[in-house]
Amino acid sequence: MLTLYSFGPGANSLKPLLTLYEKGLAFTPRVLDPSKFEHNAPWFTALNPNGQVPALDHDGKVIVESTVICEYLEDVFPDQVPLRPADPNQRAQMRVWTKWVDEYFCWCVSTIGWNRMVSRMVAHMSDEEFEAHVANVPIEEQKLKWRRARHGFPQALLDEEMAKIARSVKKLEARLSESPWLAGPDYSLADICNFAIANGMQHGFADLVNATDTPRLIDWIARINARPAAREMFARSKREWTPREQ
Amino acid sequence: MLTLYSFGPGANSLKPLLTLYEKGLAFTPRVLDPSKFEHNAPWFTALNPNGQVPALDHDGKVIVESTVICEYLEDVFPDQVPLRPADPNQRAQMRVWTKWVDEYFCWCVSTIGWNRMVSRMVAHMSDEEFEAHVANVPIEEQKLKWRRARHGFPQALLDEEMAKIARSVKKLEARLSESPWLAGPDYSLADICNFAIANGMQHGFADLVNATDTPRLIDWIARINARPAAREMFARSKREWTPREQ
Repeated sequence: MLTLYSFGPGANSLKPLLTLYEKGLAFTPRVLDPSKFEHNAPWFTALNPNGQVPALDHDGKVIVESTVICEYLEDVFPDQVPLRPADPNQRAQMRVWTKWVDEYFCWCVSTIGWNRMVSRMVAHMSDEEFEAHVANVPIEEQKLKWRRARHGFPQALLDEEMAKIARSVKKLEARLSESPWLAGPDYSLADICNFAIANGMQHGFADLVNATDTPRLIDWIARINARPAAREMFARSKREWTPREQ
Repeated sequence: MLTLYSFGPGANSLKPLLTLYEKGLAFTPRVLDPSKFEHNAPWFTALNPNGQVPALDHDGKVIVESTVICEYLEDVFPDQVPLRPADPNQRAQMRVWTKWVDEYFCWCVSTIGWNRMVSRMVAHMSDEEFEAHVANVPIEEQKLKWRRARHGFPQALLDEEMAKIARSVKKLEARLSESPWLAGPDYSLADICNFAIANGMQHGFADLVNATDTPRLIDWIARINARPAAREMFARSKREWTPREQ
């Protein structure tokens, strides 16, 4: 039995969600509420000591880290709609892209997203209530991020992250100008994992992601949204507190 | 035919090097000299546009990113001394550890390493000579790192990185107190990829990594160094400009 603990269908939570829908695997969704710091509650940190979603429970064994969960689903269900290229070279290209999104692209977009949205999510709390929640955040760097979301990120950091986003968008556009999908001729985890971050940027970062400047990226986002699995995922998935940037 | 472009047997270069030795695969080593910015020379950026080692040329196809190269060698030579657990759950644990070293552990150790060593490597250059080299660095964030290595890293950043190193060392010690190897009962890429960063810390970070505070980590480093493949690798591999922290 598969149970996926996640937020709504955006960012890192989208990666295993869309993978499960693409592969047509039955699973029980458990949507957590970040505004209640539910992912740092004791019942959940008992499952994932890092206090992070997504987490997949497969017959009582818990797999964490969104990209690792996607590879795990391929390892366990390799023949059920394969989402990794069979060719080792293309599979390596796929991993270069899933690694890049995890190490670079997701962080810059995340910081701006936290600055815009998470700040509003915690604005209504008293200092005491907020700090009581932050005390339960297991990862030290995440505590800092929550405090910055509440009290403000340094402008120099926001500027740097915006510059990284601009570079990321150009990189994706360049790749999609030479290949229909990120890892090569076939749709793969490379696309799913980058779509998790890029989807919605045509609204939230419209000055960077638009039909004039990044036509290939816009087309790729639309092609993934049009896939039956993506349509089903968005139709069925519960949103958490608020959508990301849409 | 396999050709590995790398620096000497430390940091990210060590990952594919030790994997090749463990698997007993014949390869041609090409050791680049970072003090000459050889990895940013046109002949090499033609192979890897990011201007980074390691890079593996396999029959004319180039694979980049150290961890991706290790997984690629497993994909292509799966039966030749397997370094990934066969069990999907343990394989996922392996990937959590290879991901963690790439996203967290390697960065904090790298910054301190650059501050200590790369600064000395570029000290003799004139400003003109140095900037001419930096102009050829393809990745924007790497240009900043080179300039900081020459002119000084902000002390707040160095303090933050040292705190991260202390946390990393505790995390490794805790894991090695419950398991002989990082991903479970068997030696795997999780160990190779973390050893790439941890080896030498018993000298360069002796206040954190020592027999009193981290006996399990010390023992694990010694166990890997004692493996025939590691001994052969260190005996045969050329050093680049200078050893890391030993």
